[in-house]
Amino acid sequence: MQSSMIFFSGVVPPALRVRSVFTPANPATDRGSMASPSGGPKWAQKTITLPPQRRGCHLITSKILKEIGQDLSGFNCGLAHVFLQHTSASLTINENYDPDVQADTETFLNTIVPEGRSAPWRHTMEGPDDMPAHIKSSMFGCQLTIPITKGKLGMGTWQGIWLCEHRDAPTARKVVVTLNGI
Amino acid sequence: MQSSMIFFSGVVPPALRVRSVFTPANPATDRGSMASPSGGPKWAQKTITLPPQRRGCHLITSKILKEIGQDLSGFNCGLAHVFLQHTSASLTINENYDPDVQADTETFLNTIVPEGRSAPWRHTMEGPDDMPAHIKSSMFGCQLTIPITKGKLGMGTWQGIWLCEHRDAPTARKVVVTLNGI
Amino acid sequence: MQSSMIFFSGVVPPALRVRSVFTPANPATDRGSMASPSGGPKWAQKTITLPPQRRGCHLITSKILKEIGQDLSGFNCGLAHVFLQHTSASLTINENYDPDVQADTETFLNTIVPEGRSAPWRHTMEGPDDMPAHIKSSMFGCQLTIPITKGKLGMGTWQGIWLCEHRDAPTARKVVVTLNGI
Repeated sequence: MQSSMIFFSGVVPPALRVRSVFTPANPATDRGSMASPSGGPKWAQKTITLPPQRRGCHLITSKILKEIGQDLSGFNCGLAHVFLQHTSASLTINENYDPDVQADTETFLNTIVPEGRSAPWRHTMEGPDDMPAHIKSSMFGCQLTIPITKGKLGMGTWQGIWLCEHRDAPTARKVVVTLNGI
Repeated sequence: MQSSMIFFSGVVPPALRVRSVFTPANPATDRGSMASPSGGPKWAQKTITLPPQRRGCHLITSKILKEIGQDLSGFNCGLAHVFLQHTSASLTINENYDPDVQADTETFLNTIVPEGRSAPWRHTMEGPDDMPAHIKSSMFGCQLTIPITKGKLGMGTWQGIWLCEHRDAPTARKVVVTLNGI
Repeated sequence: MQSSMIFFSGVVPPALRVRSVFTPANPATDRGSMASPSGGPKWAQKTITLPPQRRGCHLITSKILKEIGQDLSGFNCGLAHVFLQHTSASLTINENYDPDVQADTETFLNTIVPEGRSAPWRHTMEGPDDMPAHIKSSMFGCQLTIPITKGKLGMGTWQGIWLCEHRDAPTARKVVVTLNGI
């Protein structure tokens, strides 16, 4: 019923080396590391700006993969970390097929978190949808860690990455993706 | 009140080297890395298939440790990542002692997420328990990251790993465990 | 709209080496690794004991940074993992400015999870606030992973780390922080 544990040591065989163009964070100090031919465990980090989207749950797997897919291919085993830098939206993993699942999830969130006159919130100066947005953000969270297996995200067949926008006024959202592996 | 930060560099002393049998993902290309005697940071990844369990919350710490415990012992410091490849079940960390905590958590989830005739869901073609299962999956999440300290999972005394099955019909569930450390 | 992916290899240039005092977990076996001049990917781990706080949500970013800030400065790119070793409190990321957001979040949790005579819980022997605390712990979770960018936590402008205490009787809470990066 189970596969064997697959181990990876700290040295990457040439076939697995990252082919992406290196863009050192600080060319003056990073040059030394780039010249290294041995290729141990690799780290990569990128900030992605997602375009404004309407309130609700949105499948963003393809948007994320468009940004990191080529880089992912350089990792045989690792982890991809996706971090949303906001407190009124959230990231979650859920169904990637029927958009009704996204709509129903938005319905659930709106049912469970009161908004408007019936709501007991003190924090109202940024609008009636703001405090409910903060609560929903903590319910689903702002961070995902996903396994990398043989150059791809190791999600299940029906899993996708969702950005859930909890504010009425759409704004661009920043996501920091960090890849680590071998 | 605080302990000092403990640092680990990239070279593992012989006493800490992994004793597990290496099973390269691709024997043709991975052989080079396995021959490496230097042993820097290590990565290990394994897909575990958990047997079908009835709807509700189940303590699975011992099942997970049975699969990875021997491998864990090779890590002095690191992180264990556990990822459920499904959208109608969830992973969480909660009490490992009184089964009533599991039963009460299931009661809570069923109270908060409407099911059946009273439910407003559009996504109903896979049964009345399917859309509630998706929502519960995002509430608790499908991924855990747990510290590894001196060869063991660094959970608290009362913490355990739970698999929460949200569907009525039990099915086997796949979990990808990724270990990374030194 | 997007920045380029920044890659880091396994060798750290001298300017980025950790300046923190090394405290080997096991001086007898770790001495070898500390003598290593090459400085590949680094791991650091520390258990922090947070003082007892009253029931509710508390911003703890400065408390965490006081403990790990100096160590963080040694990482150019990486991940910080924060793990709460308890099942009746939680960690989440939310607004770092208006304390009303914390108060409203506590109001929400108390509204959604019944407590006292109206509650259907079986697990009551540790007090009426205990089972609700377990449920809230799974709703928000006990673990956070945050990107490290150029020696600092890569959170957004308005994000902070919250410890949510769900028990009436305040107790000290242990948090394991693990840093990994380059």
